[in-house]
Amino acid sequence: MKLEEILSPVQNELPLVTESLGQVADVDFPQFADVIRQALGARGKGVRPALTLMAGKFNDYNLEHLIPMATAVELLHTASLVHDDTIDKSPLRRGIPTLYSTLGDNAAIMAGDYLFAKSAELAAMPGNLRVVRLFAKTLMDLAKGELEETLSVFNWQQNREDYFRRIDGKTAALFAMAAESGAILSNSPEEEIQALKNYGHYVGLAFQVVDDLLDFTGDEETMGKPVGNDLLLGVLTLPSLLYVEQNPDGNLIKKGFESNGEGPDLKQAIAEIKGSSLIDESFAIARNLVEKAQSSLQPLPDNDSKKALLGLADFVFIRKK
Amino acid sequence: MKLEEILSPVQNELPLVTESLGQVADVDFPQFADVIRQALGARGKGVRPALTLMAGKFNDYNLEHLIPMATAVELLHTASLVHDDTIDKSPLRRGIPTLYSTLGDNAAIMAGDYLFAKSAELAAMPGNLRVVRLFAKTLMDLAKGELEETLSVFNWQQNREDYFRRIDGKTAALFAMAAESGAILSNSPEEEIQALKNYGHYVGLAFQVVDDLLDFTGDEETMGKPVGNDLLLGVLTLPSLLYVEQNPDGNLIKKGFESNGEGPDLKQAIAEIKGSSLIDESFAIARNLVEKAQSSLQPLPDNDSKKALLGLADFVFIRKK
Repeated sequence: MKLEEILSPVQNELPLVTESLGQVADVDFPQFADVIRQALGARGKGVRPALTLMAGKFNDYNLEHLIPMATAVELLHTASLVHDDTIDKSPLRRGIPTLYSTLGDNAAIMAGDYLFAKSAELAAMPGNLRVVRLFAKTLMDLAKGELEETLSVFNWQQNREDYFRRIDGKTAALFAMAAESGAILSNSPEEEIQALKNYGHYVGLAFQVVDDLLDFTGDEETMGKPVGNDLLLGVLTLPSLLYVEQNPDGNLIKKGFESNGEGPDLKQAIAEIKGSSLIDESFAIARNLVEKAQSSLQPLPDNDSKKALLGLADFVFIRKK
Repeated sequence: MKLEEILSPVQNELPLVTESLGQVADVDFPQFADVIRQALGARGKGVRPALTLMAGKFNDYNLEHLIPMATAVELLHTASLVHDDTIDKSPLRRGIPTLYSTLGDNAAIMAGDYLFAKSAELAAMPGNLRVVRLFAKTLMDLAKGELEETLSVFNWQQNREDYFRRIDGKTAALFAMAAESGAILSNSPEEEIQALKNYGHYVGLAFQVVDDLLDFTGDEETMGKPVGNDLLLGVLTLPSLLYVEQNPDGNLIKKGFESNGEGPDLKQAIAEIKGSSLIDESFAIARNLVEKAQSSLQPLPDNDSKKALLGLADFVFIRKK
């Protein structure tokens, strides 16, 4: 199933989110408006705002609250990408020049800050304090997850829990918030709010595990970066962690990290991991997370939105190749 | 009068803000706690949180709401300094190594993001939606003011309005929010809320004008940067703008900016400005802003807090030398 089909229950509403995002750029200072438009130009297919809208379909589907919230979710994601691109010194995102490359790092940091602030303003629009607090907490989780990754670079003494805590912060928290906020703003009963929050959490984790796996299984040309790039930069993802777990002493990652990535060890480790069963083991873990996401939906009544959410969880794997 | 004396109406409460800031560092990840403690170590004398507390003294002085809000105000200020230091590549702040210098720019960007998020969470603690929205707006103003400054570097075609809009965003908005939020959270009548907001706005503008003047009147050794540093970096502040206004054609700043600061023109412009009446004219404008701040307080009843606020506005000039 294509993503467009999966998102069909909210196909009429997603353009309203795009429109509402466009209004974010309507600011008094023209040069500034261009900056915002550029950042928004590189957005993806809108999975996160779709999640908010679909989570709202089980009870009071109130677009006056859900559209600003879905916009806040997408804008928060955009803001974090602006800072990520600045940190990674990325020239392009989805083929569009990043703010970092056009404006330099200083203006890009400020533009990201502005987008964070604007998303906070949008999240406050429905006037729901629980959502406002959830939003602030998610922003903290995001920054904490990213910071933890940065601070643990070239540290091989990490375990699976460290990894899952990091990706929970940097990815799953936003998916969980997207779903939970939609449930809250449609006045769902607490059991359904928790079900949708858990769904978002597990889909987010699975999404990031698969994304990290692409770093090993993708090819250099499509990805625009070398195979095993994360590991070369000192970042441990699931397959590398499984490798370290299974080779506690004197392994190549330990050797490579101890020399800060100098020498042939990490390249050799990447080749070993790629040729091993660790890739399949990692996919099995992602599969398990997708199943947890799907079974989280159990308390919800059957409707088109539930069907779409079940399909969206499986979609995580379509990005596999 | 010393600042400590001016702040005496809230001298017992300011340590509670410091304590509450200390708790911000109590996070699960020890390395992260160190990062936060370091950022908080370089804080100033607490004028902004004192403003929130003093603004709360005219009606229901409820510390359960005012302490988290005052903490949010100070933390928002700290977060913006972390990003400023990263942008300016500053090694030290108040003699303490910046996060930028200890951790590098990547981790410093993330740590700033975390502090912004944490301040948003604290601002939501009193459960007042008007304050939450005011907070988000202030965060936007801050980022917009800074970005506007960055984007207008080496552009000599600016006027006084551009300057006041920029410093309103980057400085006065936070002073105004500090005072306004204290007034709102103590259930003040609307007239008093507006009075305190205007007071904060004008004090903030005066504060920044004087701060910018120090760049011309201070000495290189005390400031740790060359006299006229802003202008050398392509940033127009009030005296430079008055100079451009009074010399519309063929002035040294135009020449210097057109060559991006290369050549002797800007150094010469700095010497001309320093020796001219423009410094006194700028101080007169700041004095006028302080008077506006003080007369904004007119609708408020006389009490210790009002007396302190009147004194605090004058304090702006004690930094004059």
